[in-house]
Amino acid sequence: MVESADFSFEEISADELNRLQALYGPLTDAVRRVVQAGIRTGADEQTIREAQASIEAVAEKLEASADADVVRMAVDGRPVVWGNPVTGFRNAIAPPLIMHTEPDGLWWSEFEVGEPYQGPPGWVHGGVLALVLDQVLGEVASEGLSKPMFTGTITMRYLRGTPLGRLRAEAAIERIDGYKTFVSGHISDSDGKTVEAEGIWIKPAWARGAG
Amino acid sequence: MVESADFSFEEISADELNRLQALYGPLTDAVRRVVQAGIRTGADEQTIREAQASIEAVAEKLEASADADVVRMAVDGRPVVWGNPVTGFRNAIAPPLIMHTEPDGLWWSEFEVGEPYQGPPGWVHGGVLALVLDQVLGEVASEGLSKPMFTGTITMRYLRGTPLGRLRAEAAIERIDGYKTFVSGHISDSDGKTVEAEGIWIKPAWARGAG
Repeated sequence: MVESADFSFEEISADELNRLQALYGPLTDAVRRVVQAGIRTGADEQTIREAQASIEAVAEKLEASADADVVRMAVDGRPVVWGNPVTGFRNAIAPPLIMHTEPDGLWWSEFEVGEPYQGPPGWVHGGVLALVLDQVLGEVASEGLSKPMFTGTITMRYLRGTPLGRLRAEAAIERIDGYKTFVSGHISDSDGKTVEAEGIWIKPAWARGAG
Repeated sequence: MVESADFSFEEISADELNRLQALYGPLTDAVRRVVQAGIRTGADEQTIREAQASIEAVAEKLEASADADVVRMAVDGRPVVWGNPVTGFRNAIAPPLIMHTEPDGLWWSEFEVGEPYQGPPGWVHGGVLALVLDQVLGEVASEGLSKPMFTGTITMRYLRGTPLGRLRAEAAIERIDGYKTFVSGHISDSDGKTVEAEGIWIKPAWARGAG
């Protein structure tokens, strides 16, 4: 099981977070661009091999000063998510999503998905939508990852195809019943909902004494 | 809706597929390595900026000869999946999974997931497991993507945390009822199942005349 110690954080300032995002964000965007280029390129073999060698050389330089002991950080008690595959500003796999909250308890994000997230031609991969919804509903259940909560079950209902491009995800808590939190949400394009999701998040046994 | 024309393919030989995999596989592996390095590096600002510039230069070269009209290919009637975010050998977002089939109808894959797929520290992101399961169950429903099939619903049940590392996914058809195919599967680590999934795949209306 996950230890409660994993949920401790070092507080950093909002300025320090801005500095980190400004440092790593453009690097991660560059990596996203090369992910896309690798899918699309029709370059000749020599160009491909040179590209590969250049990328390996960059990786080697970055690895030379890898952080052996990466710190989990928080700003005002809310975790700074930099490695997450949906929201992390240092993870090129993430679109990334930036989450927003409303006073009424709605959590939402507008984001862009391109060819690396494609299933059938022109459409977002259904599993990518599940990945995004798991993250968004989980953020709601855990109040922005500030409480330990694990996904129990999640169900996706695909209403129609979701086109590549600009999308919106939103979610809210339906109800809380003991250590179970019921959350629902959806993804929509400019014409409305494309996928609905509902799930149950569970507070782990070791955290049930806490609030 | 998706047009049936999207499901046409150009047949290529197994040798040609081997050539493409040998050409693009190592490039994609290099991009995966730099995704990981970008998450982990503790390099100074100048090194980060140089890395960013190098990656942008590589992307620019690859983009200069982008395939405007990417062909969908098949070997022996089975689609060649090179861009898919779970199985594509040209998509650095994909771990990637390589699917295998057994005579009894079981589809399985053994694969490795590292830090870019992490949720809580040391554990695979629940949404990444949903992404993988959607792909694996969908491959079963569509017989290796050779038949047009769209996800109707899919439910994941998380039995316990799934550790980063080597995992196995498997799935099989439960039953077919008219244009609905019911599929179930799971992901396991060396100690057994960690996530179960079940879903319904739907044959689109335009394809219902076909076999």
